[in-house]
Amino acid sequence: MMINDPHVHEEMTAVFARYEQALVSNDVAVLDELFWQSEHTIRYGVGENLYGAEQIFAFRNARPSAGLERSLSRTVITTYGNDFATASTLFSRGSSPGKTGRQMQTWVRMPEGWRVVAAHVSVIDTP
Amino acid sequence: MMINDPHVHEEMTAVFARYEQALVSNDVAVLDELFWQSEHTIRYGVGENLYGAEQIFAFRNARPSAGLERSLSRTVITTYGNDFATASTLFSRGSSPGKTGRQMQTWVRMPEGWRVVAAHVSVIDTP
Repeated sequence: MMINDPHVHEEMTAVFARYEQALVSNDVAVLDELFWQSEHTIRYGVGENLYGAEQIFAFRNARPSAGLERSLSRTVITTYGNDFATASTLFSRGSSPGKTGRQMQTWVRMPEGWRVVAAHVSVIDTP
Repeated sequence: MMINDPHVHEEMTAVFARYEQALVSNDVAVLDELFWQSEHTIRYGVGENLYGAEQIFAFRNARPSAGLERSLSRTVITTYGNDFATASTLFSRGSSPGKTGRQMQTWVRMPEGWRVVAAHVSVIDTP
């Protein structure tokens, strides 16, 4: 299994950037598109634990769209073979000094394209 | 790509149980064995962000071994094809009432066996 095949890594990096742009602009259609539409999809958020795409989509549609801007740091995307990837990043917001966000996603290349199958977001005091 | 092939799922479930047993008994040798020995491995913990197996192993060896017992709930293991899996679970500890832990792991079947390539653990007020 090839780790970080350049072509796959480049592809995944572009999808990750598309997701991030959709997140900070609250483009719910793209966010929903990029999450796997399955009962198996899981998203642990900053304050909620969502099981299945239905719960995740409902959460997104109810979320306030203000204050989503953020800066990423220490972003690491790793690909395993052709169809599997993890994307991990820290993030910070000007509105939350002293706090560090952590976002970790597992991506799988499904027949319909790269999709997030599991995600976990949390915020801690900056270590 | 077959989701939750019964044989693969059974295999992954056994490995996950072995990891959990090692965690609550602080069997550092098994925990280290089951994390991918790579600079790419990432573990976001309850209060720390660890990049690379070296940092992860150093953290484990320095961690107090008391109070690791915990109860799991809503554990979901999903396998994708033969070589990839995610394992997500909530956990609670008697010593932390009102708190919910979330653990999410990405597992890859490496030549040496199933290994955690990325993990994220966080604790929030019970939603």
